Amino acid sequence: MLILKKKDIIQHVDLNKNLIPIIEDAFKSLSKGLVMMPPIMRIDIKKYHGESDVKAAYVEGLDSFAIKIASGFFDNPKLGLPSSNGLMVLLDSKTGVLKSVLLDEGYLTDTRTAIAGAIATKYLSNQNANSVGIIGAGIQAKLQLQAIMLVRKINKIIVWARDQTKANQFIESFKDINLNLHIASSCKELASLSEIIVTTTPSKKPLLEFDWIKKGTHITAMGSDSEQKNELDPHMLKQCDQYVPDNQLQTSVLGELHHALKQNLISSKEKFNDLGDIINDPRLGRKNKEDITICDLTGTGVQDTAIARFAYNLCKANNLGINI
Amino acid sequence: MLILKKKDIIQHVDLNKNLIPIIEDAFKSLSKGLVMMPPIMRIDIKKYHGESDVKAAYVEGLDSFAIKIASGFFDNPKLGLPSSNGLMVLLDSKTGVLKSVLLDEGYLTDTRTAIAGAIATKYLSNQNANSVGIIGAGIQAKLQLQAIMLVRKINKIIVWARDQTKANQFIESFKDINLNLHIASSCKELASLSEIIVTTTPSKKPLLEFDWIKKGTHITAMGSDSEQKNELDPHMLKQCDQYVPDNQLQTSVLGELHHALKQNLISSKEKFNDLGDIINDPRLGRKNKEDITICDLTGTGVQDTAIARFAYNLCKANNLGINI
Repeated sequence: MLILKKKDIIQHVDLNKNLIPIIEDAFKSLSKGLVMMPPIMRIDIKKYHGESDVKAAYVEGLDSFAIKIASGFFDNPKLGLPSSNGLMVLLDSKTGVLKSVLLDEGYLTDTRTAIAGAIATKYLSNQNANSVGIIGAGIQAKLQLQAIMLVRKINKIIVWARDQTKANQFIESFKDINLNLHIASSCKELASLSEIIVTTTPSKKPLLEFDWIKKGTHITAMGSDSEQKNELDPHMLKQCDQYVPDNQLQTSVLGELHHALKQNLISSKEKFNDLGDIINDPRLGRKNKEDITICDLTGTGVQDTAIARFAYNLCKANNLGINI
Repeated sequence: MLILKKKDIIQHVDLNKNLIPIIEDAFKSLSKGLVMMPPIMRIDIKKYHGESDVKAAYVEGLDSFAIKIASGFFDNPKLGLPSSNGLMVLLDSKTGVLKSVLLDEGYLTDTRTAIAGAIATKYLSNQNANSVGIIGAGIQAKLQLQAIMLVRKINKIIVWARDQTKANQFIESFKDINLNLHIASSCKELASLSEIIVTTTPSKKPLLEFDWIKKGTHITAMGSDSEQKNELDPHMLKQCDQYVPDNQLQTSVLGELHHALKQNLISSKEKFNDLGDIINDPRLGRKNKEDITICDLTGTGVQDTAIARFAYNLCKANNLGINI
């Protein structure tokens, strides 16, 4: 059994183009019905503003599968600790024997989440979209932007964050790349300047309205991963030209779709093409240059299995980690 | 972060009386509503007759909580591997930071399951019950018997197993203790000789019928932990004097109760006292010497949190394990 630490994993896994087909394959398998992916388990610790989520997925034909624990404890920064944390466990598909514990501290979750954003942008935004508006200024704000730059030639970045200091730090962190950087005074202003928008916040109130969105814009909403979180006005899902969930079973209970269903704006019987359906058949993606598209990412266990296997295989091949 | 292996854990955790109050406290907290315990997650890998279950529970006021992965891969013996496997992960309740990975290979699950059987017997069987019938001859058959001997003075053991060789091996393994040992030719014969009965099989068809059970008998059914498994004729739950689930939410979907509900023998509105209710107030337990009582054990996350914390604290105090 191999114990891998974050320091091992980051030597071979970073946000680069090689990861795109790995995560695409995961979504493709999910769309083809080749994945056994149980509902997410959540342990809420309200007293400490904390939660631990467990995600897992077995993909038919793969010799291992992952069970992932990801924690968010939102008072941690006051204690000088990161709010996110986590580990992945890799089990043998044939025997259930433990192959590896990946002590990635949430790094692989962050990475596979950003790559899903790149994939959404690749299949749903206009080819020549070159301006990105990022809502939020945390870790995913940075990673989503970097991931989008793997698939689109970006020359303008707009950011909005509730905390102006964080927006400044965000811009500061990108100042070395020779791009047009702008802090928007509102989400409305941000929308007026962006052809691609990514929402990356834990907001419980919608931040974007449909009327603010330019024709042809693609929006990736990746902040909402629990019942209360909500970044888009639920009407947007009905008004847009195409709504794409990462996994409709999940977005129905945790994502933006959840709120549109609750308000009876969309019928629970309506079936959307999942992101994997579009990767399998890209003609199901963006139809027209003027379309407004929305991708709703809640994060799936199959992405975790894909990236855990990728990290394990690379680290093992390079003799990293501790055998126990 | 402390990695504990099975060889560390077995030095300080074994099936003894000290564990009874530890697991009793877990059930008591559950009964008092002090536990956040999500539904069990299950990953089924039908191709290899395997499944991995994830259980978890946070107990208010405790500084850590466990998430447990337990696997059963039923073709493993053909490969010379045990069918059960597992590990527990202990997280800090305040920060979500990983405190320990307990590579117990299912040992702690086996132990806390047997202790739950001891607790059921302690509160529900007659004080002077001295004959135990064990149905099944696997690991839990042995452990349940040993656990019962912690709480009742047993002088007669009856065993029945589908596989006669295994029944012989079972008896052989207990031959050093000076007791009356008997292999029953049927479950009916076993029932006619037993004041306490424990069912420990993965049977999908009922093995016991109400008419076979002697007055005053206590039955612990611990084999059923998934929808299809079923050891007791569902009518027994209605006919007995007292039915006690470890956790009614779980037994309604996984345990013996599930089958009685499905056959409309018991209304889904009926509320039973859980095992923890009876530990909190033993007057809710057995009422009369002649009563037939049934305890339905599906295994709860709160037992896992209790035993993981117990094992971690003891191993840490004794400088065992590997700090990573």
